[in-house]
Amino acid sequence: MHIGLIGLGKMGGNMRTRLRAAGIEVTGYDRNPEVTDVTTVDELIAALPTPRIVWAMVPAGEITDAVVTELGEKLSAGDLVIDGGNSRFTEDERHAAQLAERGVRFVDVGVSGGIWGLENGYGLMVGGERADVEELMPVFDALRPEGPREEGFVHAGPTGAGHYVKMVHNGIEYGLMQAYAEGFELLERKELVHDVAGSFKAWQRGTVVRSWLLDLMVRALDEDDDLSEIEGYVDDSGEGRWTVEEAIANAVPMPAIAASLFARFESRQDDSPAMKAVAALRNQFGGHSVKKA
Amino acid sequence: MHIGLIGLGKMGGNMRTRLRAAGIEVTGYDRNPEVTDVTTVDELIAALPTPRIVWAMVPAGEITDAVVTELGEKLSAGDLVIDGGNSRFTEDERHAAQLAERGVRFVDVGVSGGIWGLENGYGLMVGGERADVEELMPVFDALRPEGPREEGFVHAGPTGAGHYVKMVHNGIEYGLMQAYAEGFELLERKELVHDVAGSFKAWQRGTVVRSWLLDLMVRALDEDDDLSEIEGYVDDSGEGRWTVEEAIANAVPMPAIAASLFARFESRQDDSPAMKAVAALRNQFGGHSVKKA
Amino acid sequence: MHIGLIGLGKMGGNMRTRLRAAGIEVTGYDRNPEVTDVTTVDELIAALPTPRIVWAMVPAGEITDAVVTELGEKLSAGDLVIDGGNSRFTEDERHAAQLAERGVRFVDVGVSGGIWGLENGYGLMVGGERADVEELMPVFDALRPEGPREEGFVHAGPTGAGHYVKMVHNGIEYGLMQAYAEGFELLERKELVHDVAGSFKAWQRGTVVRSWLLDLMVRALDEDDDLSEIEGYVDDSGEGRWTVEEAIANAVPMPAIAASLFARFESRQDDSPAMKAVAALRNQFGGHSVKKA
Amino acid sequence: MHIGLIGLGKMGGNMRTRLRAAGIEVTGYDRNPEVTDVTTVDELIAALPTPRIVWAMVPAGEITDAVVTELGEKLSAGDLVIDGGNSRFTEDERHAAQLAERGVRFVDVGVSGGIWGLENGYGLMVGGERADVEELMPVFDALRPEGPREEGFVHAGPTGAGHYVKMVHNGIEYGLMQAYAEGFELLERKELVHDVAGSFKAWQRGTVVRSWLLDLMVRALDEDDDLSEIEGYVDDSGEGRWTVEEAIANAVPMPAIAASLFARFESRQDDSPAMKAVAALRNQFGGHSVKKA
Repeated sequence: MHIGLIGLGKMGGNMRTRLRAAGIEVTGYDRNPEVTDVTTVDELIAALPTPRIVWAMVPAGEITDAVVTELGEKLSAGDLVIDGGNSRFTEDERHAAQLAERGVRFVDVGVSGGIWGLENGYGLMVGGERADVEELMPVFDALRPEGPREEGFVHAGPTGAGHYVKMVHNGIEYGLMQAYAEGFELLERKELVHDVAGSFKAWQRGTVVRSWLLDLMVRALDEDDDLSEIEGYVDDSGEGRWTVEEAIANAVPMPAIAASLFARFESRQDDSPAMKAVAALRNQFGGHSVKKA
Repeated sequence: MHIGLIGLGKMGGNMRTRLRAAGIEVTGYDRNPEVTDVTTVDELIAALPTPRIVWAMVPAGEITDAVVTELGEKLSAGDLVIDGGNSRFTEDERHAAQLAERGVRFVDVGVSGGIWGLENGYGLMVGGERADVEELMPVFDALRPEGPREEGFVHAGPTGAGHYVKMVHNGIEYGLMQAYAEGFELLERKELVHDVAGSFKAWQRGTVVRSWLLDLMVRALDEDDDLSEIEGYVDDSGEGRWTVEEAIANAVPMPAIAASLFARFESRQDDSPAMKAVAALRNQFGGHSVKKA
Repeated sequence: MHIGLIGLGKMGGNMRTRLRAAGIEVTGYDRNPEVTDVTTVDELIAALPTPRIVWAMVPAGEITDAVVTELGEKLSAGDLVIDGGNSRFTEDERHAAQLAERGVRFVDVGVSGGIWGLENGYGLMVGGERADVEELMPVFDALRPEGPREEGFVHAGPTGAGHYVKMVHNGIEYGLMQAYAEGFELLERKELVHDVAGSFKAWQRGTVVRSWLLDLMVRALDEDDDLSEIEGYVDDSGEGRWTVEEAIANAVPMPAIAASLFARFESRQDDSPAMKAVAALRNQFGGHSVKKA
Repeated sequence: MHIGLIGLGKMGGNMRTRLRAAGIEVTGYDRNPEVTDVTTVDELIAALPTPRIVWAMVPAGEITDAVVTELGEKLSAGDLVIDGGNSRFTEDERHAAQLAERGVRFVDVGVSGGIWGLENGYGLMVGGERADVEELMPVFDALRPEGPREEGFVHAGPTGAGHYVKMVHNGIEYGLMQAYAEGFELLERKELVHDVAGSFKAWQRGTVVRSWLLDLMVRALDEDDDLSEIEGYVDDSGEGRWTVEEAIANAVPMPAIAASLFARFESRQDDSPAMKAVAALRNQFGGHSVKKA
């Protein structure tokens, strides 16, 4: 099997390596000349057998839009485009329709595993037509972790379902991290507990809270046992926001994941306009002193 | 009627003024010689007709404990002590029992109104025996706002009920302030809205959100229309914590008031240990960069 | 002054009455023949002096879209359409552009006050061009409450700003109601407190939590002192959702208002799929018993 | 080594088995004659070599109090009591002091692993004197999971630290379960996703959210793929409450774990008094209809 892969960054580059190690032929394209296999998308397309399979692994939004548009213009009827990036599921319907006008097929794949995927394999959540997914199974099998297929791969539904499940996966991830983080802060604050890092380490076997994220927390604490070297500043890349938006759109209560999202927003504020307002109100009714900015 | 009043600070001092204006004779004691009427508690006690009525208006906790203990030792059977401070309701049972050993009666009163109480009157929430409360009605009528008695006064139940209702009042207050504050922050952030202070001002009449706190928000914005002069740093004096603790003890869901409390905790943190942990985790699994402290 | 008013329901009907009482001539149209002044929109338009002013007071979404579209087709350059319904602010830009193609002007107005507006006046939050707003001031002055104009009216910014401020107003309203509601539940649960309805009543004067919503809570408790006659089922009409969506879009932490929204979602569920999952997990790891559905 | 073990329920019974399998001699006592080794605590004490080691594995609260009291009366100076139950950490100080009066030593141990501990070993979090902990290492090594000791065991600090770390562990557990549960509900609600159980199963390898709890969720969905057979009713056994109480006492923001706790409270309510209040308020200001109870 021989596929094209557009985008050879942190994720795409490792995926190329893993695919090749599994015997899948990969022609990769990236704007970075140091990592690319070909110098243009045209060249990539020319290198592929028909029907062509091209996996896009580029940032969601404008860049994915541009890649899908370019592929729509340059591929032929019967070819197949995979969006493995972190696109919002609502984009998939649009991309699929855009490609369908040219007879080009579309499959969306949510890919989890981060920088560890090269070694451990990637969890794959797929949306699209059954026949298309079948055709891609050798690629998915190469990327997914060792073990039973269904423990690292799911065909979750039609177009968009792959990114939807990945989106919810990331929303859950926000909640899991926040739970460990709140526990960490309480343990750090409490003088009674002398060995916070050791406590996290001791949770790795036998306990109810053991997980891969816990293992990573232990790794982080091994490097910096009170996290004094880093700031409590946390970005968000969109999927947590989309998850809460979907909760709202579907009237699903989502208090813990929403709290995790808001905690990230707060982490990036130098000062809180809301808490200025509360401070001002307390001053007004009770004469409580305020801190001058 | 003639009562003793211990504690002549921001609250007690104004209450003395309001009581006297209503024809209640007040002998006040405070450690501050500039405001006190007598130089010792003994002198205060000596000045009062029997059965004596002494209103304690001092900070909750150790100071209230000390005043109750002293009064228990110095008063006589049939006298009556009122705790009008912000004591936790669980203290009331203890204080009542302590005084009862000497035959001294006890009434707890939650007092709301802050620095505006002198002018507007104080909202009063009372716990204790019916007969004792009856006896104190001239005092309560002098302190409460103009208008129907039941709109500024309630005998809510037995010992502790006054402080309990006041505690919940303050928990609600946390939630109300947080709601206005979150709305303020969103309006401030949104460029589309050119007149945030004017919007709050325009809510004062006719709208669903009109309230005394809104009026105070308007006052604050009149003085500093984007609150740029103050910091988003908010203390908490205990009653919000107790309210959430009581919610937990009684299995009452209290998400909005708890969120308001946690927002205050966050407002006082220079950096968040929890968000350090989340940043560290994201770095571990995804290679996402962290900010160095 | 003479304006057209489309939509004579709970809000529009009362607004017509209030406008006429203030000397504004109003021609009203509604599909309900019992309340309408004219039988068609064409007739309404024919009745108005030019430049015509037509206030739409109909449900947000498809119906407002249809009314704006019809008015765009039937009005003339220089005429002016007001959307006083609960449209999402993002609709305003679209409606304004649609009307501008025909030279028709557009102003958006958030109207607060509910069924009490007839008597108390309506809080008005306006978005649009300064000149258009000036022209409409007699209408706004007739609708708004007595008292200083700026306490019941704001021109908050350009197109969309009126509905934006109204949206945030409603988000705050969610938070305020939730705060009172959480306090109510705790007081109801606590046996120590004998007079919950009386406690709310006693907060009406002098306290920090006094507000119009509190007055309404007292009214509700006067009718049914433990609310035993009604179910804890709460709809939401969109503005709370939009407020939280805007918070997410603008990275504004909004924990209390979001909690209020989620509480409404929960109130409408017969059973919680999420809590089924938690029950299942506890059963799996700890053998804790589950309730059979 | 030979120890006494009081309490042979779901946890204690399995622990006896695991200890014996590892060559630790165990004399067990339980009120249930079918599982007990001896008929009285006196008999148990008589069977042990001195200094005696007695592990209490009974429900927290009154029963643990009773067992500690009885052991304090019946053991001798130099003996050692272990509380391996789910006691609140504040109890430990009290129990240690009570036993110290008789020269009896005390160690607190948080034990995680549930019904799987027999097979997988138990995660152990220990508080107490270093020398006492050293002496107990053969017991701890027998109970903890295979693998490096520090991945299933921690001596976290002095008396109380073991139960404190276990309490926080359980608080985190609440948050983790809630995160999966909220994601489950959203996936269940969304028609786009055809295979919710398959999606959870596919997260078991390679993804960021993989964990033991996820594995258990997969087990639960294998048995009942939409959880239709069980009710969304979730008890709480105290440790989640204590964790949030400690957060409040230490001014630690804990929004996600608190949300998880409140969700459990809600799950047990037939109707919500708070949402009755919100429904009543909406009816009052907007004439919105309410559902009759």
